[in-house]
Amino acid sequence: MTRRFALGVEYDGGAFQGWQRLSPPGVAGDTSVQGVLEQALSRVADAPTATTCAGRTDAGVHGQCQVVHFDTDAVRDPRAWVLGTTTRLPSSIAVRWCAPVDDAFNARFSAVARCYRYRLLNRQVRPALQRQYLSWHWRPLDAAAMHRAAQALVGEHDFSAFRSAQCQATHARRELQRIAVAREGDVVTVEVQANAFLHHMVRNLVGSLLEVGAGARKERWVAELLAGRDRTVAGPTAPPQGLTFIAPLYPRQWGLPDEVTL
Amino acid sequence: MTRRFALGVEYDGGAFQGWQRLSPPGVAGDTSVQGVLEQALSRVADAPTATTCAGRTDAGVHGQCQVVHFDTDAVRDPRAWVLGTTTRLPSSIAVRWCAPVDDAFNARFSAVARCYRYRLLNRQVRPALQRQYLSWHWRPLDAAAMHRAAQALVGEHDFSAFRSAQCQATHARRELQRIAVAREGDVVTVEVQANAFLHHMVRNLVGSLLEVGAGARKERWVAELLAGRDRTVAGPTAPPQGLTFIAPLYPRQWGLPDEVTL
Repeated sequence: MTRRFALGVEYDGGAFQGWQRLSPPGVAGDTSVQGVLEQALSRVADAPTATTCAGRTDAGVHGQCQVVHFDTDAVRDPRAWVLGTTTRLPSSIAVRWCAPVDDAFNARFSAVARCYRYRLLNRQVRPALQRQYLSWHWRPLDAAAMHRAAQALVGEHDFSAFRSAQCQATHARRELQRIAVAREGDVVTVEVQANAFLHHMVRNLVGSLLEVGAGARKERWVAELLAGRDRTVAGPTAPPQGLTFIAPLYPRQWGLPDEVTL
Repeated sequence: MTRRFALGVEYDGGAFQGWQRLSPPGVAGDTSVQGVLEQALSRVADAPTATTCAGRTDAGVHGQCQVVHFDTDAVRDPRAWVLGTTTRLPSSIAVRWCAPVDDAFNARFSAVARCYRYRLLNRQVRPALQRQYLSWHWRPLDAAAMHRAAQALVGEHDFSAFRSAQCQATHARRELQRIAVAREGDVVTVEVQANAFLHHMVRNLVGSLLEVGAGARKERWVAELLAGRDRTVAGPTAPPQGLTFIAPLYPRQWGLPDEVTL
């Protein structure tokens, strides 16, 4: 009997070419997070095992609690999926939890929101500690101005101005539910939640907010960019290592752990 | 004219064999933090330049704001020491600040306290994110019990029970000024401040507190260990990657940055 499971997966994106696999499921040598995860899952299942994720991440972007689902005929309890799979993974990936789910659950389509966090070090000198998880901006940033400017993005909008040229989504309308910029010492953090994101959307938003934070643009410029829908005039794409996919959020009905439940 | 400078130095200990150099100052090929730092400083000074640090750290232990002093005839302003040296360092070390200091200042002997932080992940599955900066303990830990047990260590005591066999200090009396154990989610943090530390003292304290946290020992065991002064009966030495030397503290008279001033 085929059963469906959901996994919470943590990974250090610096070690991978991005989320999406380039080879069929379970084939050795693939250096994507998905590819390496499926190789380990396939060994535990003793059969090629494909996963579907909540949100694909680019090369260098981290995952704190990525969620995937997979179908399997193998009879294993959740603890065996967690520990057996993690044992077969490199140190840069770990399976945090496993939950049996209804066949109607889909890691991608059941998610009603996604949360990302971008962290950057704002000081004269580059980071040594935490450099794997921070980008670096040496010009002094006004985080409060960035926060105010970002509020123009909240709501349902066409985010074409912040979409990469490679984005394959059929339309650019997304509902941005929350965005907050805050400073703690030398670290500036941008937290953003939306129903879904376009390709490079978080890094492009951050890149434009940085222009405001550094004083190169007025706060109202972010609202003007959004209204203009023209990617060519927005700020540059911020580097990937500062970005972490915190988690997708699902309705309570699916019975998933609190950290991924709305 | 010879002038003395102090530097604040940040480093990722995972890349090094420990603080202390094994070759003369400025000689290439040394893989200690001190050796690599002095190679860079010597190039900026255009002369072999030796440093004295506030607290030597073991292989794998990190530094958030190690302080060193050095003497030089080279005429450079503090900004040049910071940026010129950092440019010549690998990504795992950065010079955070430089301050000219009185000849009477000594990074080691002027320090009146040292602060360390130990962080460990307490969950079933090993870390993927932050694994460079966390040790891992899968057995559930009672952080409140660890905190209570640790308070027996506060004050001036003979810390022989927590001293490594290789420790070269002339005596084992130290004044432990503060110790706090706290949990935030899956991460348990031990912060400890003393006038000075013995070799492996923080990691040995943490190793014994873990026995209490896991329920293998009563809370009063830590006080008994301290009174017994016998290293052979205390807990194991906790792994290095969870440990960070946060900063030494100096009296205000030296005019150093706030983060290293009492």
